[in-house]
Amino acid sequence: MKLDFDDLHDYVRGAAFLGAGGGGDPYIGQLLLRQEMEDGRTATIIDLDELADDARVATVAAMGAPTVMIERFPKIATLETALETLQKRLGLKFDALIGAEAGGINGTLPLIAGARTGLPVVDGDGMGRAFPELQMVTYNIYGLSASPVILVDDHNNRVIVEAGDNKTAEDFARAAIMAMHGEAQIALYAMTGAEPKRAAVPRTLLLALDIGRAIASARRSNSDPVVGLVDHLKNRADPRFAVELFHGKIVDLARETRAGFAFGRIRIEAIAGDAGVMDIAFQNENLEARRDGELVAMVPDLICVLDSESAEPITTEGLKYGQRVRIVGVGVPPIMRSDPALAVFGPQAFGIEADYRPIEELFGQSPSRGARQTCDDKGA
Amino acid sequence: MKLDFDDLHDYVRGAAFLGAGGGGDPYIGQLLLRQEMEDGRTATIIDLDELADDARVATVAAMGAPTVMIERFPKIATLETALETLQKRLGLKFDALIGAEAGGINGTLPLIAGARTGLPVVDGDGMGRAFPELQMVTYNIYGLSASPVILVDDHNNRVIVEAGDNKTAEDFARAAIMAMHGEAQIALYAMTGAEPKRAAVPRTLLLALDIGRAIASARRSNSDPVVGLVDHLKNRADPRFAVELFHGKIVDLARETRAGFAFGRIRIEAIAGDAGVMDIAFQNENLEARRDGELVAMVPDLICVLDSESAEPITTEGLKYGQRVRIVGVGVPPIMRSDPALAVFGPQAFGIEADYRPIEELFGQSPSRGARQTCDDKGA
Repeated sequence: MKLDFDDLHDYVRGAAFLGAGGGGDPYIGQLLLRQEMEDGRTATIIDLDELADDARVATVAAMGAPTVMIERFPKIATLETALETLQKRLGLKFDALIGAEAGGINGTLPLIAGARTGLPVVDGDGMGRAFPELQMVTYNIYGLSASPVILVDDHNNRVIVEAGDNKTAEDFARAAIMAMHGEAQIALYAMTGAEPKRAAVPRTLLLALDIGRAIASARRSNSDPVVGLVDHLKNRADPRFAVELFHGKIVDLARETRAGFAFGRIRIEAIAGDAGVMDIAFQNENLEARRDGELVAMVPDLICVLDSESAEPITTEGLKYGQRVRIVGVGVPPIMRSDPALAVFGPQAFGIEADYRPIEELFGQSPSRGARQTCDDKGA
Repeated sequence: MKLDFDDLHDYVRGAAFLGAGGGGDPYIGQLLLRQEMEDGRTATIIDLDELADDARVATVAAMGAPTVMIERFPKIATLETALETLQKRLGLKFDALIGAEAGGINGTLPLIAGARTGLPVVDGDGMGRAFPELQMVTYNIYGLSASPVILVDDHNNRVIVEAGDNKTAEDFARAAIMAMHGEAQIALYAMTGAEPKRAAVPRTLLLALDIGRAIASARRSNSDPVVGLVDHLKNRADPRFAVELFHGKIVDLARETRAGFAFGRIRIEAIAGDAGVMDIAFQNENLEARRDGELVAMVPDLICVLDSESAEPITTEGLKYGQRVRIVGVGVPPIMRSDPALAVFGPQAFGIEADYRPIEELFGQSPSRGARQTCDDKGA
């Protein structure tokens, strides 16, 4: 399938939702994708099943220092240069592209590269959401090599990293990006088709589109878009556990930038007849949500802050005192909940001492359970 | 020609002298070179004239963060890996090696790589001495590209930098080296034979050997080794302006490490019948010498601090309060004194406000002229 103009807002809104507060400003991606469409170029999205086992696949992304999130407008020709450099380095031609992260701006960049190169884009990614570091991808978790990592800056300067392990590759790439004034377009994780079939989080692009459409559809029919979204996530062909965790007003907001990450927390006081408070801690992305002190959701499950009326996702940079917000939690698929996956992007990878517990279990057991929506676990 | 066991101490002492206080611990290079000789491997040193114009030449060096000087024992197999990676990247085989800096440990590393690969080592380098940053080379000054720069760490992780200009290459390489825990073996400045003929500082390897031998020879004949060295430098076939600038005792020593550089200054009070004081400022290397406040030598001319009895060169890290030292100044060849050269490694590149004046001119005009040796300018 291909996205068309009507899908643009929906897709980007869905990618912002999957960013769970992080992943950078998705509207930069929307503008870039629109430009490609206006020039008559649209990428074809293919399912993992459509990929031949011996196909050659590359990952493309924008990388900012020190987080994957980028803030400047990426130079798109540079993304193609990164891809061409990787092809030349390996002496092959790629048959398809795949994303590193579904959430935020990196959810759209593979589609832009696909539009420009004519390569199909695989419906899947390496995070199923957004994360701040590049080793936090399922490709790494399931044994694939990021190297060679090609980094290209806006002046066409290149750095190629060939490291024995992916954390070292991340460290070297991060150092190079600092020297590149904070941003580069990257190509990495060259794989055969068989590899993302076992290592990618599947169908996250169409999930993003679906999320955006569900919100838009509820708005059009004048029904509650948060309710509409949660219902849709539970009942789609590829269902996810989803629940509205809270509805309230931000009464406290603390945010500090440390080592380049946006660390912080918000407190939300219940409105709309509810009682109690919800506290959400974030490091670029929302990491854990507590209702009256009790954990109700934790990373890697999605904790999404939405505008209370429009259900538009709010990034952690966009949080403001007094905002009326609704919090939606969504379970992630089993590939993101394995022990090796949790070791890389579970709660402890972010300094949270508690062991990971799936949202459906936490939400079911929370003594202060009282949100307005509950549902069965169909997703995980 | 080839160095033999008897040359080892002399060569390394000469390289330390050319380091003008910097370039790292030369005795690491001596141990490594001895190991190669004991294993039956010795590099052939060839003159620039012996190099075919269409020969392929590469530069090898050790690079430490944030200065070129290194402090750890370099892993020599890694130097070969860097060279092989550069060959593979360019799809060619090198015919010869050349150094980046003649002073300090990087004066010996090309000879070690040459011993191991069988490639001849060209008698010349890109600094004629030691400097703290890799763009401070005549190859850069005379229009050659450092890229691709291959960096290999002790764990065989590799970074390849391809930058449009050499200062950017330096910045990227420096960032990579920080991520590599402070040290890498590097291969860079792939050139044709015609290029170092116009861009290298010629005959600096045999100069190092000659300096070491002159000191040793004077010691053996129980004559004054500093006097012997200065006389020899003035009278050799390829003469240099050389002068003993001062003889005294270090009465003040200030040193601080800032941004990874060793900044500092010493004050030397005259002994041995002389009067007055000499102040020497350094940033890794000795940068300027003033006698009673008047400039008598400045970078890129060599200001070398020697032990007063043995004439053994003392690096800026080795300076101690109370040391009895003699200061020798040596003029550098014209290729290092051109306007473009001075723009890159002249006094102002190190934050000294004065314009460069050659040592032979400064020394001749110094009102407090009174050192024990003077001589004609034959070198520049």
